[in-house]
Amino acid sequence: MLHAVIMAGGAGSRFWPESREARPKQLLPLLGQKSMIRATLDRLGALVPRERMLVVTTRMLAQAIADELPDLPRAGVLAEPCRRDTAGCIGLAAVEILARDPDALLIVLPADHAIGPTAVFVQALGQAVRLVEADPRRIATFGIRPNYPAESFGYIERGAPLPEAEPGTAAFTVQRFHEKPRIDVAREYLDSGRFYWNSGIFVFRAATILDELAAQRPALHRGLQAIAAHIGAADYPAVLEREFAALERISIDRAVMEHARQVVVIEASFDWDDLGSWQALARLAGHDEHGNTVVGRHVGVRTEGTIVHGAPDHLIATVGLRDCLIVHTPDATLVANKHDEEAIRQVVELLREKGWLDYL
Amino acid sequence: MLHAVIMAGGAGSRFWPESREARPKQLLPLLGQKSMIRATLDRLGALVPRERMLVVTTRMLAQAIADELPDLPRAGVLAEPCRRDTAGCIGLAAVEILARDPDALLIVLPADHAIGPTAVFVQALGQAVRLVEADPRRIATFGIRPNYPAESFGYIERGAPLPEAEPGTAAFTVQRFHEKPRIDVAREYLDSGRFYWNSGIFVFRAATILDELAAQRPALHRGLQAIAAHIGAADYPAVLEREFAALERISIDRAVMEHARQVVVIEASFDWDDLGSWQALARLAGHDEHGNTVVGRHVGVRTEGTIVHGAPDHLIATVGLRDCLIVHTPDATLVANKHDEEAIRQVVELLREKGWLDYL
Repeated sequence: MLHAVIMAGGAGSRFWPESREARPKQLLPLLGQKSMIRATLDRLGALVPRERMLVVTTRMLAQAIADELPDLPRAGVLAEPCRRDTAGCIGLAAVEILARDPDALLIVLPADHAIGPTAVFVQALGQAVRLVEADPRRIATFGIRPNYPAESFGYIERGAPLPEAEPGTAAFTVQRFHEKPRIDVAREYLDSGRFYWNSGIFVFRAATILDELAAQRPALHRGLQAIAAHIGAADYPAVLEREFAALERISIDRAVMEHARQVVVIEASFDWDDLGSWQALARLAGHDEHGNTVVGRHVGVRTEGTIVHGAPDHLIATVGLRDCLIVHTPDATLVANKHDEEAIRQVVELLREKGWLDYL
Repeated sequence: MLHAVIMAGGAGSRFWPESREARPKQLLPLLGQKSMIRATLDRLGALVPRERMLVVTTRMLAQAIADELPDLPRAGVLAEPCRRDTAGCIGLAAVEILARDPDALLIVLPADHAIGPTAVFVQALGQAVRLVEADPRRIATFGIRPNYPAESFGYIERGAPLPEAEPGTAAFTVQRFHEKPRIDVAREYLDSGRFYWNSGIFVFRAATILDELAAQRPALHRGLQAIAAHIGAADYPAVLEREFAALERISIDRAVMEHARQVVVIEASFDWDDLGSWQALARLAGHDEHGNTVVGRHVGVRTEGTIVHGAPDHLIATVGLRDCLIVHTPDATLVANKHDEEAIRQVVELLREKGWLDYL
């Protein structure tokens, strides 16, 4: 049966101070009324029933996510004992689901991406599912056609067209997965027309991903098998705690995808953004005639290219600014050069050093 | 007898959002624990008893000022019916005080300047009082030796040295008062060595200033005489309301000083700043090794030459900023280029246009 695995363990310090350790990006309504994870679940609703959705997150976030998703069964939120990157996350989800459904086919995706329109996305997932059903060893993924030489994404290099791709769909074998490139390499990728951004959305059988892990990362697979062997047993929590912590920290891309043989890439027909930064958010939200993107109450004098993210009950006034980022929350305000967004992480680190933990 | 007239009617929109209509600069503790007006009164305390201090302000501010100065007698706060610039303010104070003390000698000064050390200031005022006592027609004022070609101050051009100046004091006849100059003219003033900034602090007999007004601004003087004639009468409030509103709006400099014959200027031996802007405040408060002046809780990454004015319970984080001004208050935050401070007034005007009166 078809299941959805929603990866929701991210910390999202790029959106500080709006995002906090206890309320990271996936729990924020960055694009409107719904939190990112709520929107992700709703988007999948036409394809996968709630009982077959599994949200994998951290212990710190489990309760907040359960509260955010009251329609999800209690077993629908799985808290990892610790962070072990996407290979551990997906591996754990695979063994948990496989214990109940030996034929499980998984849609795996992050909880905090901007995707639309929903109908197009659902149709694209349906195509991926059919490609995997046609060949159970297959791993299907979605590639995003790049429109600029991004350095912040991994890339997928496509190979030969898949003959069985449905009309109107571009699907290919995968030549290779590439890690985040330098700018000159990213330009080559863009110019070649054969490279996609790696969306981080996959469709595969649970058994297939575990077989690939067994072949490529045997130690990691042994740890997962040890966990699988105790599902339903009294000592399961203790075994999970011990074995999961011992897993290698590695992404699913590096652990499996880069060397898996039967990976196919479908060119995404939907709009996609990983919403990795305030600038990405502003890009999606659009801007006024001065290039400003504003959420909340604002007055500006000679203000251009600026992102203002506040609240209706707190006024933000700007004078003589260009390309700034201003984020106001009840207990903390960030003012940054918007081209210096990466350094927001440094603020979070400084706060930790100073012991000002209330702001994390 | 010696009286102090403290002009406290200013709106101070330059310090928005810290200053508001109901809580302008003179009521703010911009330089420490004390409000500006509290510090002004305390500074005068060694020279003038509380019963001979008169704070002239607006109706909107009268109660807040009385609350701020509980040691002042009830009659020590005089509320103008409307704003009529410094000639109206000083003229009204003069007729009020003259009604009780025909020989009154007035120290007139703004409520919101930064002045120190107190002992030096008090000594300088004493010298001015003695110069006026020596020649009752005299108007004494203080000139500040300029250290840069300021365009934001009026200037006083000095004439011949006064022979009776006390040892260690530089006092001169006044050649001329000059309005705020353009930058090239300001440079000439600075280079000449004969020009002082007009401090707005005066010492004169109440009768003298009214005589000068009578000679130079007869209509304004007639209005004041009409008010004076009803002091203590039942219809005084109505007469004040009517006559004061009819007064010409003009500064005491333009109305009297520029053409008064017996004005003398004493070179200020005290430190003085009109604290006309956030930058002036930062100049007085000093800065750290990155040129930042910070009040409140702050973390900065690559932040230089920036003024941060917040509170201990709200964090302001800055990233990649230079020469910015950030002022955080519970209901409004200002982010400005600090070289664009004049435009803060435009924010206040925009708020009025939008009807967002809560922020004024």
